[in-house]
Amino acid sequence: MDKKSIGPSTLLFPTPAVLVGSEVDGKANFMAVAWCGIAASTPPAISVAIRGQRHTLKGIAEHRSFSVNIASAQMAKKVDYCGMYSGSSRDKSKLFSTFRGKLGGAPLIDECPVNLECKVIHQLELGSHVLVVGEIVESYVSSDCWDAQKKKVIPEKIDPLIYTGASQVYQRLGEIVGKAFHEGKELSL
Amino acid sequence: MDKKSIGPSTLLFPTPAVLVGSEVDGKANFMAVAWCGIAASTPPAISVAIRGQRHTLKGIAEHRSFSVNIASAQMAKKVDYCGMYSGSSRDKSKLFSTFRGKLGGAPLIDECPVNLECKVIHQLELGSHVLVVGEIVESYVSSDCWDAQKKKVIPEKIDPLIYTGASQVYQRLGEIVGKAFHEGKELSL
Repeated sequence: MDKKSIGPSTLLFPTPAVLVGSEVDGKANFMAVAWCGIAASTPPAISVAIRGQRHTLKGIAEHRSFSVNIASAQMAKKVDYCGMYSGSSRDKSKLFSTFRGKLGGAPLIDECPVNLECKVIHQLELGSHVLVVGEIVESYVSSDCWDAQKKKVIPEKIDPLIYTGASQVYQRLGEIVGKAFHEGKELSL
Repeated sequence: MDKKSIGPSTLLFPTPAVLVGSEVDGKANFMAVAWCGIAASTPPAISVAIRGQRHTLKGIAEHRSFSVNIASAQMAKKVDYCGMYSGSSRDKSKLFSTFRGKLGGAPLIDECPVNLECKVIHQLELGSHVLVVGEIVESYVSSDCWDAQKKKVIPEKIDPLIYTGASQVYQRLGEIVGKAFHEGKELSL
């Protein structure tokens, strides 16, 4: 084993580059988030780590809801913009065309291929960040990313944006290296 | 807007294919996990969603620690194996060569390029899954993935495995589409 201890770190790969939508002081606001994960399936839930002083937390506190919008690779510029500037200094409400879902408490982004509408069910204070856990009450998919026959999304059409923090770049999904629930059968143990 | 409501779902992109290590009944055990996200930076923390009846939860309950091992693309077969079979029916303790970290409560995988050693700080019961939040007490990086001059990991060397649940395939990181904290400046708003 040739390993190096580098101290506590946040080195997870891959991480997404989603846009978390909220309504803050009556305005739509969007934050770029890489620290996000699915938390449960029944009911579906998602966790989003948000730094304590973030503008988005104000909106979440007020409306108890938020949206997670999957950005596609072609949206890198806008996602980066949302990651660079706070809603407290820049008005991001005109950056996207939006719609409202069932809850109505948070804006959802039209041009994002997948939108998850969330109701806050837990907030964990974790030092630098608040881990906001939301129940996903509805999902919206752009029609061109939906296979109506198979009733499934089409990942290649979604073309999701990936944020690789270690090298500070945005990436696409790459080469397929295996089929799940299949490769493992070939291991003879 | 041409959107389709498809009901509550767990559609997040991308998701990782990490191996969560634990010690269960005195044996090393490894579980494939896609539902995982960084939860905070100071101190560094990570969340992992684990279905309630999982073998891994027994080990976590006993030792209050676990490891998150970033798999590389060439490990797809072994990761898939860990995802297909439970440690209650298959002995996975010989699947990898392992080492122990600071806490000693969970095995870490040698051949994984990045290993995060975690101490449990929260467990949220979320219906189908328990969201286990761990403080990352130490990180280990394989020497060939570490740039000693820049004191940074090299993502291309890590070559992390991605699990795309919607199409049940494993993928690599793909094309770089932009530089973070840079692209956004070009937007004139």
